[in-house]
Amino acid sequence: MNLVFLAIACGVIALLYGILTSQQVLRASPGNARMVEVAEAIQEGASAYLRRQYTAITVVGVAVAVLVYLFLGGLSAAGFAVGAILSGVAGFIGMNISVRANVRTAEAARIGLQNGLTVAFRAGAVTGMLVAGLALLAIAVLFYVLTGPMGMAPNDRQVVTALTALALGASLVSIFARLGGGIFTKAADVGADLVGKVEAGIPEDDPRNPAVIADNVGDNVGDCAGMAADLFETYVVTVGITMVMIALLVSGAQLLPLMSLPLLIGGVCIITSIIGTYMVRLGKKESIMGALYKGFWTTTALAVPAIWFAATYALGDLNQTIATTGGLSFPAINLVWASFVGLAVTALIVWITEYYTGTNYRPVKSIAKASQTGHGTNVIQGLAISLESTALPTIVIIAGVITSFQLAGLLGVAFAASAMLALAGMVVALDAYGPVTDNAGGIAEMSGLEDEVRHRTDALDAVGNTTKAVTKGYAIGSAGLAALVLFSAFTEDLRVFGSEIGVTSDLNTMFSLTNPYVIVGLLLGALLPYLFGAMAMTAVGRAGGAVVEEVRGQFRDNPGIMDGSVRPNYARTVDLVTKAAIKEMIIPSLLPVLAPIVVYFVIGAVAGQENGLAATGALLLGVIVSGLFVAISMTSGGGAWDNAKKYIEDGNFGGKGSEAHKAAVTGDTVGDPYKDTAGPAVNPMIKITNIVALLLLAALAGHGAA
Amino acid sequence: MNLVFLAIACGVIALLYGILTSQQVLRASPGNARMVEVAEAIQEGASAYLRRQYTAITVVGVAVAVLVYLFLGGLSAAGFAVGAILSGVAGFIGMNISVRANVRTAEAARIGLQNGLTVAFRAGAVTGMLVAGLALLAIAVLFYVLTGPMGMAPNDRQVVTALTALALGASLVSIFARLGGGIFTKAADVGADLVGKVEAGIPEDDPRNPAVIADNVGDNVGDCAGMAADLFETYVVTVGITMVMIALLVSGAQLLPLMSLPLLIGGVCIITSIIGTYMVRLGKKESIMGALYKGFWTTTALAVPAIWFAATYALGDLNQTIATTGGLSFPAINLVWASFVGLAVTALIVWITEYYTGTNYRPVKSIAKASQTGHGTNVIQGLAISLESTALPTIVIIAGVITSFQLAGLLGVAFAASAMLALAGMVVALDAYGPVTDNAGGIAEMSGLEDEVRHRTDALDAVGNTTKAVTKGYAIGSAGLAALVLFSAFTEDLRVFGSEIGVTSDLNTMFSLTNPYVIVGLLLGALLPYLFGAMAMTAVGRAGGAVVEEVRGQFRDNPGIMDGSVRPNYARTVDLVTKAAIKEMIIPSLLPVLAPIVVYFVIGAVAGQENGLAATGALLLGVIVSGLFVAISMTSGGGAWDNAKKYIEDGNFGGKGSEAHKAAVTGDTVGDPYKDTAGPAVNPMIKITNIVALLLLAALAGHGAA
Repeated sequence: MNLVFLAIACGVIALLYGILTSQQVLRASPGNARMVEVAEAIQEGASAYLRRQYTAITVVGVAVAVLVYLFLGGLSAAGFAVGAILSGVAGFIGMNISVRANVRTAEAARIGLQNGLTVAFRAGAVTGMLVAGLALLAIAVLFYVLTGPMGMAPNDRQVVTALTALALGASLVSIFARLGGGIFTKAADVGADLVGKVEAGIPEDDPRNPAVIADNVGDNVGDCAGMAADLFETYVVTVGITMVMIALLVSGAQLLPLMSLPLLIGGVCIITSIIGTYMVRLGKKESIMGALYKGFWTTTALAVPAIWFAATYALGDLNQTIATTGGLSFPAINLVWASFVGLAVTALIVWITEYYTGTNYRPVKSIAKASQTGHGTNVIQGLAISLESTALPTIVIIAGVITSFQLAGLLGVAFAASAMLALAGMVVALDAYGPVTDNAGGIAEMSGLEDEVRHRTDALDAVGNTTKAVTKGYAIGSAGLAALVLFSAFTEDLRVFGSEIGVTSDLNTMFSLTNPYVIVGLLLGALLPYLFGAMAMTAVGRAGGAVVEEVRGQFRDNPGIMDGSVRPNYARTVDLVTKAAIKEMIIPSLLPVLAPIVVYFVIGAVAGQENGLAATGALLLGVIVSGLFVAISMTSGGGAWDNAKKYIEDGNFGGKGSEAHKAAVTGDTVGDPYKDTAGPAVNPMIKITNIVALLLLAALAGHGAA
Repeated sequence: MNLVFLAIACGVIALLYGILTSQQVLRASPGNARMVEVAEAIQEGASAYLRRQYTAITVVGVAVAVLVYLFLGGLSAAGFAVGAILSGVAGFIGMNISVRANVRTAEAARIGLQNGLTVAFRAGAVTGMLVAGLALLAIAVLFYVLTGPMGMAPNDRQVVTALTALALGASLVSIFARLGGGIFTKAADVGADLVGKVEAGIPEDDPRNPAVIADNVGDNVGDCAGMAADLFETYVVTVGITMVMIALLVSGAQLLPLMSLPLLIGGVCIITSIIGTYMVRLGKKESIMGALYKGFWTTTALAVPAIWFAATYALGDLNQTIATTGGLSFPAINLVWASFVGLAVTALIVWITEYYTGTNYRPVKSIAKASQTGHGTNVIQGLAISLESTALPTIVIIAGVITSFQLAGLLGVAFAASAMLALAGMVVALDAYGPVTDNAGGIAEMSGLEDEVRHRTDALDAVGNTTKAVTKGYAIGSAGLAALVLFSAFTEDLRVFGSEIGVTSDLNTMFSLTNPYVIVGLLLGALLPYLFGAMAMTAVGRAGGAVVEEVRGQFRDNPGIMDGSVRPNYARTVDLVTKAAIKEMIIPSLLPVLAPIVVYFVIGAVAGQENGLAATGALLLGVIVSGLFVAISMTSGGGAWDNAKKYIEDGNFGGKGSEAHKAAVTGDTVGDPYKDTAGPAVNPMIKITNIVALLLLAALAGHGAA
């Protein structure tokens, strides 16, 4: 059990780092009265949104918890609640730091670029470490309580189901937070831009725009709180399912140390992430991206010896043979190599995403160039890049699957996925830094700070598009690996208690592509990301339209707003977007929750229970096979469009105000719901579909009831 | 054998209809001298393009024919050549009628709407009947020669391989024609619009625009010749693979009548299609779409008794039991019901596509409405609709698969797919009508005909967007059904001669989703449409950019063009687009040809031959699972964008020249390469991947050598 304690200790260190670093951030000066006033408006708006979002989630969550309790018992209901609550907590705290760091970053940027970077990145690091720490603690403590004080065997069915229920809790919050936050941020952004920039001709972040506070609130609730919930979920699901697979495939004395190993790998990588955060410093070239990458590469490089150490400490002899119930056996060291494959996949995906979304490379430049011939060609080239950007990540993921599978079968794939997630602390830090600098720029503009300050916050913000795309590529890439493991867990479960629910056929035959119901399931699964994406895009359009109406109304009813004599009613706009986002997030979020259940029962009724299960299983793979491409194309394409605009604003192809710039603004607007609403929400969508299917199986077999 | 003769007779009737109807069309007056001059320029351009395209295809085709000869023998090489040549012939003749009917339609439209409709639809019907007739004749005659004079058994391996090689020939021409034509038409269109409408401010089809002839040529080489090759291929592949499946699954006295039945169904539906063409007449409401639908619904309704008759005639007692080697047995009448399922799927897809692309319904109206708030919101809403438009067709296809499979197993699915294709004559007629009216409008504009005439040709042209989307939805929908059959042929082949190439594992286990190499194959297959789409979109962008440069150059070097005193050099622009399109089509076309071969050898080298085969098989399904969505979203989305523009031009949301209209033009430009280049080329891409994989198996086993 001391292995689990060690992991718990690392989780606690992450929380301590979070507390100490947030105090550092809060000690920084929040600037002058005007700045504080603006920041408070953002804080109020963000809190109001989160309150309402969590209220809505609570309603759905309690209903689901009751269902979990009825079908799977109290232990699973408790696991579900822990997952849901901690996911919410990670988002809540992260966002609270973010909305306080924004104004301090603006103030620090008055002194210099390094000062601004330090405050903003520290705020991001707080969120990052909280996400990784809380996720690790959630799994480790639950596992400890069940197997220690409660005395269950590590591979007891109730432990497995409780870990899965924990993942469900995290997933449910995550999809609501990702989607609700994503709709909020883009509805406010698109709405503010359309009336402000396009109709009224006032610049971005102009205080006369009634939607400007909502826009800044959106950055926090979407990119910070939503993303934190997403990565919390991805962490819990990936590490949790790795432990579940070990429980299903390994037995004997190796079971407990092996189940503890993913926790320990998560633990040591929290330490390397913390070390990495101290490496984020500008070099001579003053490259902000370079500074952030120093932190990331340090974390990744240190992870190599750290994982080696963790495995040696947990397993002792790395040459010992691990034999699975499936008949596979391999030396323990292969799991270490598989973990390194996970690190390599992460590094490659970061590099590829940088290539597709950075302003220095062909893709973004090609979109900027295409903007010269108009809106249409900008969008065509952007769509071409978004389609193309799926190729290299897919090939990397496939290579990762093949290599880790050759090393250690499904456990190899699971360890590769877990090692990817072990870096979550650092990756989230890079991402959560984005909304802080974005807000800092807004506050600098609204409080009328010097141009120089705005230039610095712009420079800090520019790399945010790439780091945000990187995080999303990383999240969906890990989902690609995890999905394989999730599907295997589904079939393993079916192998274990299939007979209890009347499954008599050979599983290989059931899930063979030669079974038409498998193809039906694949097609239905592939449909989900498309339908979900359509709903998310439409929701942004509708909510954005409501913002346009509201802002037009305020301008019309109150002509004093435009000449600056009257302060617009920011709160009313925030409230409107809040209500719209909450309303719009419910139906699409329920799509992946209900899909596996409906498919099981409908296909089961038409073609028999076994074909129902076959179609449901295939659905799980269909949703990843299609979702991977939808998600990568949307997030990378959106990032590329955004940076193509920035590239033009840097003075290329005519610069700001040119026709090319106008076309690039269109591309950026199109990319917004792509990269910040629909694309990133596909990741939790994939996971939730899989987890619901797993729990459906457990419920059918009447397992997990305590 | 008299069943096959009957089918051949129906094919000959189709050709006779084509000859007689083209004479009718050619007898119509081609109008005044100016009109003839313009039409001749289009004819010359189209011929020049086709000559060059067929030259390029011949080079690749001869190389492939040599490979087919070396690996699969002379019979297969002959089949390949027949498929390739007839596919080319269908496109060539269709296009030649189209470029002569355009000017006659313009002239007829001077008399009245009905006259214009008659000429244009007759031209379309010529192409339609030629496609269906030649395709039916290709399969029927090849089958007759092999099993009659050459005395082979219907299920002889050489017959199977020769039918597959026939399909390969058709597919190879089809992908080049679809892609080359698609790049040509959209490069010319986008280029002409960008310099003409946007930069020079001259209307569409203005004779001063040096790209205007190229634009009109493009309609013919893309929408007519490219589409004809595509549907010829789809027909040959679907009916051919249905016969192959029967050969693999049925034996005894039922074999020959059953193998003849798909040919006979194709034959009788040619007759119902011909009857349908005579129903295309304007009613009291003067609804052009209504007139076209009268033809389609007549054809479909008459197909019900016709198929019943064909089955009774071929099989005699419809209550006799058909037993497959797989152990399934069902009454013969179930194949009739399965064929009706195919008709129902066709009808539903037509209806759904009409909903998503017609100006009367929510989707198009929502894009038009979103145009009011700018370019960005137009594109966002268009993308949302394009994603959403995949849902209902997918569900229809899935329902079709389940129903036909429940009726008669894989043979049921195959018959459903064949019945869909039996309607090809009518569907192609609806589609090929489009470029004729589009050209007629261009000729009316360029020859300065009365406004009234232009109004009539515009009205005729407007429904073309919907019929074009309908055809593409139909083609890809049939591919969804056919893919299942193609994959089954792959596994059946492996079952039959797997042992000869060293496959010892159980096929169900090999192709189970629990095998990670199956998932690798699915992901690689899913990647193909994305990569292919990216290449196609980029190609259009690049070729369109070259057109822009050329046109700008002509305006610059020759100021007399703009004041109308000097005729621009149309031929040089046509030549430029021709070269660009041919150059750009090669690499993307080779992607689906090489992918299955590369995947087999690479994965085979890494993970053993069986896993190489498993990954290749899964690739075939991956490409359909992802390609179905990519193709439908692109073709429906593109059609919706185009008609949203038309809806605004009809006076809604500000009408022509309004800000909403400008935004809608952007959406239309984006939709162009979506719906006319990348989207439709996905259909032959799916088929060619499957057929190459089938022939790879045959080559590995050393089969088919004569």
